Amino acid sequence: MLFNKISLGGADMKFPSIPDKTPFTPLVVMELAEDTNEEAVTWLTSRIKDTQQSGGAELMIDRLTLDDNQDPKKENQNIFIVGASRERLLVGAEDVGLVKEFNDGSMRGFTYANRENFKGFQGDGDNFLSMAECQFIVKHELDTLRARGETHVPGYPKIRLYPGKSVVRRIQSKGILVQIFPLHDKEELKRLSSMWYQNVQLSFQPLDDIRHYFGESLALYFGFLEYFTLAMVPMALIGMPYYLFDWEDYDKYVLFAVFNLVWSTVFLETWKRFSASLAYSWGTLSRKKAFEEPRPGFHGVLGINPVTGRQEPVYSSTKRQLRIYLVSVPFVLLCLYLSLCVMMVYFSAEGLVLGLHDEEPTFWTSLLLYVPSIIYAVVIEIMNRIYRYAAEFLTDWENHRLESSYQNHLTLKVLVFNFLNCFASLFYIAFMMQDMQLLRQSLATLLITSQILNQFVEAFLPFWLQKRRNKRVHRRSGKVSPDQELPFDQQVMLEADMSTYLGTFDDYLELFLLFGYVSLFSCVYPLAALLAVLNNVTEVYSDALKMCRVFKRPFSEPGADIGVWQLAFESMSVIAVVTNCALIGMSPQMKSYFPDSETQLILVVATVEHVFLAFKFILAFVIPDVPRHIQIKLARVEFESMEALKKKFCVMKRKGEKLAHAYITVIRNLSDH
Amino acid sequence: MLFNKISLGGADMKFPSIPDKTPFTPLVVMELAEDTNEEAVTWLTSRIKDTQQSGGAELMIDRLTLDDNQDPKKENQNIFIVGASRERLLVGAEDVGLVKEFNDGSMRGFTYANRENFKGFQGDGDNFLSMAECQFIVKHELDTLRARGETHVPGYPKIRLYPGKSVVRRIQSKGILVQIFPLHDKEELKRLSSMWYQNVQLSFQPLDDIRHYFGESLALYFGFLEYFTLAMVPMALIGMPYYLFDWEDYDKYVLFAVFNLVWSTVFLETWKRFSASLAYSWGTLSRKKAFEEPRPGFHGVLGINPVTGRQEPVYSSTKRQLRIYLVSVPFVLLCLYLSLCVMMVYFSAEGLVLGLHDEEPTFWTSLLLYVPSIIYAVVIEIMNRIYRYAAEFLTDWENHRLESSYQNHLTLKVLVFNFLNCFASLFYIAFMMQDMQLLRQSLATLLITSQILNQFVEAFLPFWLQKRRNKRVHRRSGKVSPDQELPFDQQVMLEADMSTYLGTFDDYLELFLLFGYVSLFSCVYPLAALLAVLNNVTEVYSDALKMCRVFKRPFSEPGADIGVWQLAFESMSVIAVVTNCALIGMSPQMKSYFPDSETQLILVVATVEHVFLAFKFILAFVIPDVPRHIQIKLARVEFESMEALKKKFCVMKRKGEKLAHAYITVIRNLSDH
Repeated sequence: MLFNKISLGGADMKFPSIPDKTPFTPLVVMELAEDTNEEAVTWLTSRIKDTQQSGGAELMIDRLTLDDNQDPKKENQNIFIVGASRERLLVGAEDVGLVKEFNDGSMRGFTYANRENFKGFQGDGDNFLSMAECQFIVKHELDTLRARGETHVPGYPKIRLYPGKSVVRRIQSKGILVQIFPLHDKEELKRLSSMWYQNVQLSFQPLDDIRHYFGESLALYFGFLEYFTLAMVPMALIGMPYYLFDWEDYDKYVLFAVFNLVWSTVFLETWKRFSASLAYSWGTLSRKKAFEEPRPGFHGVLGINPVTGRQEPVYSSTKRQLRIYLVSVPFVLLCLYLSLCVMMVYFSAEGLVLGLHDEEPTFWTSLLLYVPSIIYAVVIEIMNRIYRYAAEFLTDWENHRLESSYQNHLTLKVLVFNFLNCFASLFYIAFMMQDMQLLRQSLATLLITSQILNQFVEAFLPFWLQKRRNKRVHRRSGKVSPDQELPFDQQVMLEADMSTYLGTFDDYLELFLLFGYVSLFSCVYPLAALLAVLNNVTEVYSDALKMCRVFKRPFSEPGADIGVWQLAFESMSVIAVVTNCALIGMSPQMKSYFPDSETQLILVVATVEHVFLAFKFILAFVIPDVPRHIQIKLARVEFESMEALKKKFCVMKRKGEKLAHAYITVIRNLSDH
Repeated sequence: MLFNKISLGGADMKFPSIPDKTPFTPLVVMELAEDTNEEAVTWLTSRIKDTQQSGGAELMIDRLTLDDNQDPKKENQNIFIVGASRERLLVGAEDVGLVKEFNDGSMRGFTYANRENFKGFQGDGDNFLSMAECQFIVKHELDTLRARGETHVPGYPKIRLYPGKSVVRRIQSKGILVQIFPLHDKEELKRLSSMWYQNVQLSFQPLDDIRHYFGESLALYFGFLEYFTLAMVPMALIGMPYYLFDWEDYDKYVLFAVFNLVWSTVFLETWKRFSASLAYSWGTLSRKKAFEEPRPGFHGVLGINPVTGRQEPVYSSTKRQLRIYLVSVPFVLLCLYLSLCVMMVYFSAEGLVLGLHDEEPTFWTSLLLYVPSIIYAVVIEIMNRIYRYAAEFLTDWENHRLESSYQNHLTLKVLVFNFLNCFASLFYIAFMMQDMQLLRQSLATLLITSQILNQFVEAFLPFWLQKRRNKRVHRRSGKVSPDQELPFDQQVMLEADMSTYLGTFDDYLELFLLFGYVSLFSCVYPLAALLAVLNNVTEVYSDALKMCRVFKRPFSEPGADIGVWQLAFESMSVIAVVTNCALIGMSPQMKSYFPDSETQLILVVATVEHVFLAFKFILAFVIPDVPRHIQIKLARVEFESMEALKKKFCVMKRKGEKLAHAYITVIRNLSDH
């Protein structure tokens, strides 16, 4: 591994291009506002450098010296490079609760005292932590740098500090700290890219390497993307003959739908097991979460945290509940209603235009046919953006204490709205208009256009823009080819200008909607699975490209599962049971089986649907979420730690007695002399 | 508290009636087989008396000396009384992981070293543990008495022992140990009875006292019984006018059904919160489970347990899965099918008899009308018993390693069969025959007869039999009044002869079926709730009576919730949504709303049903299972223990350094001399 050449810190090795400017391996960049008071800068850097005993972070920090051939006025001078010594990082690894493989093959919480017994720890422990882990540790240590005696940020009397609260979060929310991001590792990145997306090949994604470079959350996303794609391959294969031979036989559609429903349940359950295996091998499954700090935007009156007993801003949970149920929920419902109204207007407009065209078909009326769809698409896009903004505002206003709960509430809000926006029109066509031909058409149009648009807007366009920017920077620094290494300072400036990756939310959302297109109406459009597979294959490449080339490197985030998305996908598969049963019940062929009584048909369909739902729940209940061999491993570590605790007490007691005895003997001997 | 008069052990206090026979407070009785080899008896008692360091249980054990006026030949001479010293019990409390209230009001795991800091610990800790807790500890210490060097039970070369395996469980499964049970505490029992059921009064059950005497699992059962009863009072009140005014208006039935559905969801969710509060205050919510030992009946080839690394019998989990899915599941399905067949035969027989009576009504034919019902009832009862036996056999044969997993599998099997037996005929009447009048009649008959029969067979008959037995024993020992105290040895013999309480399974099953009667068809028979309330009120009394007077005292069992029954009740409430919606859809009044199209009616009903189901799941998701104030308390203890761990390491390090320093100084001084 190339990164291993770079040591964990200390002055013993540096990036090749910065031989004498930074005396330590740069890990993280902090950009302060250009007009930051120099007093504040001095205070902050000294707090970061201070030893832990005196309340500092004990990290290394250095101002980035800009190259001479750049105009110093144009660039921000307040960019700082943060690093840490090897020992500091290893101690920090214990602080953040990193779980690593032990010599006996089990996964255990890393402790500095016991470091020699962990697998891969050699010599001073140079290559033990990955660069992403080091950056995560530095971030954590910066975040937990707490105010001590200071009542306000030096130089800013108005920005108050509270003892025990995070300094960095405070100055970040007040705008003094503009951004903080980890540096890319050019060589490692090159190696990862070549394995990941540059060579088109038939192989699994290098999940372990992705995790090594980007952290667990992102690796889990790519793992899920791959798993999802592979899981859809059988469906795509089965779906193909329906398209090729133009099967309109509903018996066959029923078969396909049944397979689809069973498959989606099994696939979601086995994914849980697979992700548990991944998370176990990465050490996040058994990682004990430290006490979660409040998120930067959280505010409240100063009070006592009932859990820690420390003074910090508190906010009444009743008030938050009231805000959620009396404001947010009604607002979301109103938005959903509005979106439905817009859809109804669209359908009536389309009917109107169609009528006009039928009456008197001219060139202009045939052009007019496209107008409602275009307007609808534009309106939906606008509504989506406004809603997203409102949802973020509302969730912020709900004032959640924890980042995780903020994310969950935001996700839920956005999810519901996007679901309705994407699928309401399809539902309308399927169940109100009962026009299967139109449904198939709309489905295909939506699927294909959204795929192409998404990948273009989300990856290739930014990639192209970034490439142009790179070239400009290279040209300015006198290098001709963009493959040549930039000087370190310019590399940092380049990365500082890159866009920030905002997390996996939008990527998961895209997959979620895709899953909806495939599963909700699978029995009328079996080809959807094939299209989804094709989309996902290119999605892997475009997502990999955007992570490696377009965005700043994100901080790695430890994650044991895909969180709220598991629930979202499972809910979608429950809804799919209902829609598929209804679609099959509405098919003319089914109706021909019950020529006399539609009632009986509906009753049969409803019964089958209930059986399916029950079957799904039983299946989910019967399949254990964590594979047995991992359950056993977890239980063993638990058991051993309990036994060790028991033994430790005995040993300590005995040792204490022995020591006391020895001491007394020595004292006696002394007094005898 | 009366029990507090009796000290925790040691020779300082005894039961009043045994002034000089037993030198310690008797807690638990062990009855060995009458023909037990004396060698085995000597070995066992010495192992039990041995100190813990030499691998014994360090308990006190004494043979029960029978009174002279009894015929020694007629009585078993191998009855032993087990007790323990106060210190032993306190150390044992730590072993079993008892959680007690700390001085600061939080609940913490009890440790002997820290005993002074727990609330209620005074002096030597005499009244700190309840008698039930002491008995539980003694049971645990006996169960974990392990074989050491012995290869077989002395005197029984054929009964092999394996190092590290429980001795008591081994001799119990081999029939040497006939039974082991805790003794009743007459005075405490009298006090509890008077508070609990002897005085008819309007008050809540003394749950804390029940838990004090019988342990957490049983107290949770009575808590649930009470909660369930109270929760049904509003439903009973709302249901009454329907009966009084003979409302046949389906609008009103719909209202009732809606209320019922919402109510049952809310009630089950809030019960979880209530039981969490109870379990927290009893210390079982935060109790860390020790590693679970295999159940007595478990067998397998000697191998290595993958969790503990110890040698013990192991059994392949794949084999067990095969047994479950290839034998047990098909068998259960076959039994369900058979039960359905019997039901169909019953209905056709009844139809036949009815036809016969209608043709030519005589006295004999009118008598004949009852024959099918009687035969059906008898057949069902027989099938139930055979099935129960088969289920136990099969679950035993599946060879589950843990008692908990054995219980879950047995419960599931019995539950499904009982559900079908009780409700299949009602479903048939409701949905096949669509005869609401008959449904109402059958429901009332089933409810009332099963209630009366159950309480009679389960409590009052055994109570009467036990009373007769008591009288006989009293007469034999020369005491005339049954209120007079028996001599200790006769009291022990009397309790040894009492029936054994087999756990809360049947009690919960009864409640479960009752819940089914109330909720499944609530919209056609609103009076069911009232009957259920009446039943539960008497049930409390009869159950209390049977626990206090009919059965041997059971060992207390720590429990944090009602386990698999929560799931069972929730499933029932989901099924209730489906049945009630269907019943309402079938009502003539509903049909009159949609005179033209039955299809539309069914679609509306199906939609409403789906909305209800979705609503139920969202409600269950939104209401947290553990109340917030308890979540905070749990988080605080977690946080504090993590902080303490951190501090401990620092202090230990510092102390170690100081000690080493002092030591070196002393050594230097020595060498200077």
